[in-house]
Amino acid sequence: MQKIVQFLSVLAMSVSAFADEGMWTLDNFPKTTVAAKYGANITDAWLETVKRAVPRMDSGCSASFVSSNGLVLTNHHCALSCIAQNSSADSDLEADGFLAARPEDEVSCQTDRLSVLMATEEITDHVIAATDGMSDQKAGDIRRQTLKRAVQDCEDTSGLKCESVALYKGGQYWLYKYKRYDDVRLVFAPESDIAAFGGDPDNFNFPRWCLDMSLLRVYENDQPASTPNHLEWRTEGLDPGEVMFVAGRPGRTQRLLTVADLKYLRDTSIPHWLLRNVELRGRYIQYATTSDEAYRITQEPLLRVENFIKVQRKRLDALHNDALFEQKMAAERALKAAVEANPELATEVGSAWDDIVRANQTYLGFRDDHYFIEVGAAFNGRLFGYARSLVRAAAERQKPNEERIESYTEASLPRVKQLTLADRPIYTELETLQLSFSFDKMREFLGPDSMFVRQILGKKSPAELAEELVSGTHLDDVAVRTDFWDADWEALQTSNDPMIQFALSIDRQARELRKRYEDEVEAPSDLAYEKIAKALFTIYGTDVYPDATFTLRVSYGSHVGWNEKGSDVRPWTTIAELFPRVTGDDPFRLPASWLDAEETMADELKFNFVGTTDIIGGNSGSPVIDKDGRLVGLIFDGNIHSISGAYWFDSELNRSVAVHPEIMIEALRSVYEADHLLEEMGIK
Amino acid sequence: MQKIVQFLSVLAMSVSAFADEGMWTLDNFPKTTVAAKYGANITDAWLETVKRAVPRMDSGCSASFVSSNGLVLTNHHCALSCIAQNSSADSDLEADGFLAARPEDEVSCQTDRLSVLMATEEITDHVIAATDGMSDQKAGDIRRQTLKRAVQDCEDTSGLKCESVALYKGGQYWLYKYKRYDDVRLVFAPESDIAAFGGDPDNFNFPRWCLDMSLLRVYENDQPASTPNHLEWRTEGLDPGEVMFVAGRPGRTQRLLTVADLKYLRDTSIPHWLLRNVELRGRYIQYATTSDEAYRITQEPLLRVENFIKVQRKRLDALHNDALFEQKMAAERALKAAVEANPELATEVGSAWDDIVRANQTYLGFRDDHYFIEVGAAFNGRLFGYARSLVRAAAERQKPNEERIESYTEASLPRVKQLTLADRPIYTELETLQLSFSFDKMREFLGPDSMFVRQILGKKSPAELAEELVSGTHLDDVAVRTDFWDADWEALQTSNDPMIQFALSIDRQARELRKRYEDEVEAPSDLAYEKIAKALFTIYGTDVYPDATFTLRVSYGSHVGWNEKGSDVRPWTTIAELFPRVTGDDPFRLPASWLDAEETMADELKFNFVGTTDIIGGNSGSPVIDKDGRLVGLIFDGNIHSISGAYWFDSELNRSVAVHPEIMIEALRSVYEADHLLEEMGIK
Repeated sequence: MQKIVQFLSVLAMSVSAFADEGMWTLDNFPKTTVAAKYGANITDAWLETVKRAVPRMDSGCSASFVSSNGLVLTNHHCALSCIAQNSSADSDLEADGFLAARPEDEVSCQTDRLSVLMATEEITDHVIAATDGMSDQKAGDIRRQTLKRAVQDCEDTSGLKCESVALYKGGQYWLYKYKRYDDVRLVFAPESDIAAFGGDPDNFNFPRWCLDMSLLRVYENDQPASTPNHLEWRTEGLDPGEVMFVAGRPGRTQRLLTVADLKYLRDTSIPHWLLRNVELRGRYIQYATTSDEAYRITQEPLLRVENFIKVQRKRLDALHNDALFEQKMAAERALKAAVEANPELATEVGSAWDDIVRANQTYLGFRDDHYFIEVGAAFNGRLFGYARSLVRAAAERQKPNEERIESYTEASLPRVKQLTLADRPIYTELETLQLSFSFDKMREFLGPDSMFVRQILGKKSPAELAEELVSGTHLDDVAVRTDFWDADWEALQTSNDPMIQFALSIDRQARELRKRYEDEVEAPSDLAYEKIAKALFTIYGTDVYPDATFTLRVSYGSHVGWNEKGSDVRPWTTIAELFPRVTGDDPFRLPASWLDAEETMADELKFNFVGTTDIIGGNSGSPVIDKDGRLVGLIFDGNIHSISGAYWFDSELNRSVAVHPEIMIEALRSVYEADHLLEEMGIK
Repeated sequence: MQKIVQFLSVLAMSVSAFADEGMWTLDNFPKTTVAAKYGANITDAWLETVKRAVPRMDSGCSASFVSSNGLVLTNHHCALSCIAQNSSADSDLEADGFLAARPEDEVSCQTDRLSVLMATEEITDHVIAATDGMSDQKAGDIRRQTLKRAVQDCEDTSGLKCESVALYKGGQYWLYKYKRYDDVRLVFAPESDIAAFGGDPDNFNFPRWCLDMSLLRVYENDQPASTPNHLEWRTEGLDPGEVMFVAGRPGRTQRLLTVADLKYLRDTSIPHWLLRNVELRGRYIQYATTSDEAYRITQEPLLRVENFIKVQRKRLDALHNDALFEQKMAAERALKAAVEANPELATEVGSAWDDIVRANQTYLGFRDDHYFIEVGAAFNGRLFGYARSLVRAAAERQKPNEERIESYTEASLPRVKQLTLADRPIYTELETLQLSFSFDKMREFLGPDSMFVRQILGKKSPAELAEELVSGTHLDDVAVRTDFWDADWEALQTSNDPMIQFALSIDRQARELRKRYEDEVEAPSDLAYEKIAKALFTIYGTDVYPDATFTLRVSYGSHVGWNEKGSDVRPWTTIAELFPRVTGDDPFRLPASWLDAEETMADELKFNFVGTTDIIGGNSGSPVIDKDGRLVGLIFDGNIHSISGAYWFDSELNRSVAVHPEIMIEALRSVYEADHLLEEMGIK
């Protein structure tokens, strides 16, 4: 196995003996390595408990059950969408925090859904057999159909919710079977000022002082769900240097990408999205200065954009580390050479790298059209999103399940419906800003003479058209959306809602771009990666972790700091170090509740801590678990070096950052006086 | 010579026979090549007329004299600063245009200055001898002092205004001697909607329809200056394919940069500045939506920022053209090999490329501090600019001339004074936006724990400190600035103006960073480039053009279009093609005067045109001149491919874009009824 870890992580070449690399699937967890290195005996029972106690938040986070009554621990920033949708100018839960004194006070998180993994089943052979010998394009069509059919069969036979998962970029195909919780409610959230203390400047930094926690509860039949598989707290947390585990849903890593694809990210894709989002940040920040209400409603989208910017900026820096990039190239040359040395593999796999280069070149020919018109970069904002979902749902429901766009299959439609019909506040000015901005970018990138730009804008300016669509549509009304959802395709056609008509007017062309992308880019690229995965397994064996796919993984490591330019960073912070950082101004401002509590909390209380576990975005809200299966922390971030983890794992520097149990418990006790929750979680 | 042109322009390797490459100094103009290729006999008299008739606009543009009474033709966008400073909410010259019926109606351009080149003198041997055998740092100090002394001696003896110029990145040193016009006034400007028709979307595009012209006048002793050396109009313009010349001040090319420096631009510098300016654009655009007045005052800075963004984005694309970049690398390898093959050169020059790499690495260690604190990226806005100029002028005047910062020597102080004491409107909200934005970026890039950030912000937020400084200072009052300008260093120290105190509080540290940059980055890099220039001259000869330095150059070429992805682009546009592009909305909106005139103007009137002349930013406002020395156009832009001209000249695609004389004359005649100006220019 050591050989393949070295391949995956170019840095591991020098420090592999110390590397705690890998986001492991449960069926392939490296128990022997962990036992040898840390003396920890990870049993199947330990893994099974983790599987049941660590749900996915379908909005893009991880979480854990912390009581038998459906209580869920996750990050404040993972609950932010729920917090914002329950806020108003009069009742600002983001600024003021929230605590439900009784279950009946808990408020609905209308866009949230939790999924607990119950079982997995490999179907690689079935998928490969279905596409055997076909052309790229045909294989792509059939692969998609085969997977959709497998998912539907799975739901029909298992009674569970099923999803298909491609691991190793198509080296393996799996069915993942979930129990779903659609009724999620907010129980507790601290004030943003302490949850995200330090704001964007401190994001991805450590030392750190963030109470980035919240508590949710899942309900079944309007009652708190029964969750016997939950984690018990180890209130004192980890000992220095102790082995630790993180279970959760790392969203996406790109460690198996070819050099050509990494280069595309570095030189084309990341700069493009960075520039776009940085300009949007400027728009948001300036808009937020216009009134208190503008400030309030901008915080959620601004936070998302700023996090994106920081991540992408650091990923760009990582990809510009020429020494590391050169090691990636060397590793790829080595794999290619090994393929060439094996005549059978050479015939089957040899052209894969060139196929990917060719797919990228093909994409460049229509990428901007595809981005703006199909991916939707021209149509920011929730109102257009509703319109497209309603239009596509109506269109796709007319088709046989396996011919639909994947997100509109029978298995996927409930989530589309939940997101479309959630009763969330819509802010007209913000919608206009977003739509106007994205029309503007469309005109900038496609050019004023593009067919799409002429068709969409006509003689209107981006601001004028955005204003017209946003003020004219009634899709801000959930009752109107519900009517449209229940309506059929013909009824939509004759609607006079301008946003629906707008979404209809570009849908045919958007779908053509989607199909072209699937056929000319995705299909050859998928097939090429399938071949490369085969080469990997043949040459290095299968004892290796796949890239992250927002499915359950467990990472291992230890509670240690790192050396930052010659200085050792202590792996935890204490509350005593927080107060001197307070300036009184956003983002270094404390809420009154904390200023009041300063006197009462012990100086040495641990606040945030780090460890060597290999995580990435999507792991937010993951529990940190000790070798005995107890909860010892709450992942909410990585240090600045963790951002390069998208491409390689640097065990010397990459650290995950978590909230310490001591501060979570003490805050609930003495700042928020939530004794009923502590009791529910079995804490004295 | 062919050999060296090939070295300079990597593209020339394949198409050198057609390349009209080069921005030539007058003493080295390739008369023989032009005669051989175009049959045009460029005489010394032709060059001498051009020298006297083509002044520099010291704000960063080019221009030409077009009457014997000091009338100056340049671009609208070159006069924009003057137009904006003479505008107000009640009288918006940018939106409404301007025409002085009589000389006494002409309004002052307080920040403009024109310089006419009278003579040049090479002083390379003198400078090289002065620094012979010194360490990098010492040589840097002595070189700077030697040049400052030479400039002062030149002014004392010639009675002209002198500047030192380093050509070939230090391969040659020259004195340039100018006649100065400090009193510049606005005579005519069309409405922005026609001057910049198509706005940012059309910027750097062709076909194009912009009347990007304005007329200024230089005065001496409050009377129109006598300018016998001026250009006569050839009203019908060039014939298709005819030879053409552009005379002006190309600002900066980087065709002699080493691969290491190009890589630094591509991977570090350009992305950094792009991201910053794109966010600022977002701020400006959003601010402009808040009121009509906000919209009006934002247009000038927004235009500047958008032009910057477009240029840098396309330069980044150019540097990501791997094939071209590889040719640059090959050319550098070839030069290095030639150096290695010559033992004497190898000893003297061999380490130069590594020295530049080392200087870049050194710079990375303190670049962000230097950018923000000394270059001023933390302190956007005119008010801080005034404060720093006042503080530095007072400090530098206490020193001997040759020990001063170059921009505060006796030769340079008049320009600082002019810019500092110009009576221009200051917009408090815009200043606060700019300063707040740049404090914010400082905190983002240096981090909240940086010594500078802590010292500058203390416990204040960026917005709060900006607001405090902008509202507290009296530097918006020209009388206050005049008092400070006349005051000495001690008086400044005791001032209670918060912006002056703020500028004082960071000046020592800023100067330390400046000195560190000069010693550790600039000095070794300058010396290395001096060596590389020596290698170039030794191996390829001296018959070659230097990189652009905002000094007088002449380019040659012909009035032809290009082939854009299989379609031939006709090298001119007509007015008939303009009207169908009008949408009525910014930026595709025509002023009323033009809508009225639509009927009266002949359809076939030529509007804008292109040619193969090699130009770059700074050439804006340059006259296009025919082989007989007549004015046949007004450069205002390049096509999209021209942007890569910073690094190499692609003669197949790179085109300069100019306003055609037909439209300039017809607009003055039938839209603006400026017959007195036509008469003054000798046009019937």
